[in-house]
Amino acid sequence: MTNQSASTTNRVLATIMNHRSIRKFKNEKLVPFQIETIVRAAQMASSSSFMQAYSIIGLTDPALKHELREITKTPYIEENGHLFIFCADLQRLTVMGTNQEKQDMQIMLESSAFYQIAVIDAALAAQNAVLAAESLGLGAVIMGAVNKDIKRLDDMLGLPQYVIPLFGIAVGVPDQQPEVKPRLPLEAVYFENRYSSETEQLERVQAYDNDMNHYYQTRSENNRNDGWSRKHIDILKMKIPLGAMTEYMRSKGFNIT
Amino acid sequence: MTNQSASTTNRVLATIMNHRSIRKFKNEKLVPFQIETIVRAAQMASSSSFMQAYSIIGLTDPALKHELREITKTPYIEENGHLFIFCADLQRLTVMGTNQEKQDMQIMLESSAFYQIAVIDAALAAQNAVLAAESLGLGAVIMGAVNKDIKRLDDMLGLPQYVIPLFGIAVGVPDQQPEVKPRLPLEAVYFENRYSSETEQLERVQAYDNDMNHYYQTRSENNRNDGWSRKHIDILKMKIPLGAMTEYMRSKGFNIT
Repeated sequence: MTNQSASTTNRVLATIMNHRSIRKFKNEKLVPFQIETIVRAAQMASSSSFMQAYSIIGLTDPALKHELREITKTPYIEENGHLFIFCADLQRLTVMGTNQEKQDMQIMLESSAFYQIAVIDAALAAQNAVLAAESLGLGAVIMGAVNKDIKRLDDMLGLPQYVIPLFGIAVGVPDQQPEVKPRLPLEAVYFENRYSSETEQLERVQAYDNDMNHYYQTRSENNRNDGWSRKHIDILKMKIPLGAMTEYMRSKGFNIT
Repeated sequence: MTNQSASTTNRVLATIMNHRSIRKFKNEKLVPFQIETIVRAAQMASSSSFMQAYSIIGLTDPALKHELREITKTPYIEENGHLFIFCADLQRLTVMGTNQEKQDMQIMLESSAFYQIAVIDAALAAQNAVLAAESLGLGAVIMGAVNKDIKRLDDMLGLPQYVIPLFGIAVGVPDQQPEVKPRLPLEAVYFENRYSSETEQLERVQAYDNDMNHYYQTRSENNRNDGWSRKHIDILKMKIPLGAMTEYMRSKGFNIT
């Protein structure tokens, strides 16, 4: 049986609850043992029908890392202990098929259902990678920013059909110790049997906006007067065109509008 | 600094490496402390721009669980300690907006880029949930099958616009101890700087097919003469129509082909 006091003593929960994204690393490369441990941990996540529909690319070439930093204006894309790019990968499933079979597989492979499966597989693996890194005393941050020029990244990595980059994970020895960010109240995220009413959601999100405003104003670095909803609404109403990413995904065989 | 022998002593890595999906549970419900711990662990995962774009619904109503079991023909959807449904949720980001803002947000919210973000957020959270459960001595399985009749599930859960179910996680006290399944060789999943050549991938997948054939023939239950590639190719070439799911996603405001 399980133990009611587990949450305080259990090392897995302690690692999970202690997570904060690290964006500043000491100048120290990961050793092969650490990289291998992180990848093997990623591989142990569940995957849909055991398809393991993802690939991980370690970017170690300094010129490539520098270029990606320039594209993204993100220093920790270059300055880290190791940079992993996680990709959705439906290509590997096809390699043993005959040409006829490869053709016959297209309809299902190129469906949005299989695209979704591959994205989920990659993200499940990624969270194991982050926790494995943290358990080794390292820090990590997951970054969508690596996709700022997704076609260029695709070229760099030489990705075949049915393989697209989703996000990067920078790992390294932490050179900062940010506070743990308060999450949404549990009641705004978890419901029993039915999604909550709009009125209830509104109250919970409002309460959280106040919490986050307090957090942003009082944290040790980068203080600002900001809420949670306001920040996202202000970004989302900017109508930033995201069509390039969609066009790229379609060019790789994923049927996304 | 990190420790070279961590992989044998570190409890986080031990939990990750020991993962196997559990599909048979003892007749014992999770207690509120366990449910809360699992949800709070899920919430600690990273999320894109801290959007926390997911919701989790616990299905406890016996009639609903029974109906979902009937739809999916999956006994452990009903027979478990607790059933969580993980949803992509872009709705919560909008609730504090004015009507005009809600309109202005549509273009970005309904893009495939934001859909992908929400799916990734939900899956990162889900992997934390699985590990938290395992750290408490429980077992878990992630199941896409809950979506077999996705419109019916949507009705059951009362999901608003911009919220779609992705998968379920059944959790409970394990009543089976399956073997850990061998994963793809690390070399077939992890590359440095460039995706591997087709010839190399072919060799690695072939080697894995032999490994998996041995595993399927010699494991303690449910033996069969099967490889890894063959199983997936045979499913994927069946051209099973998946349009209902796509149509559903579009009806919820996600711009998916």
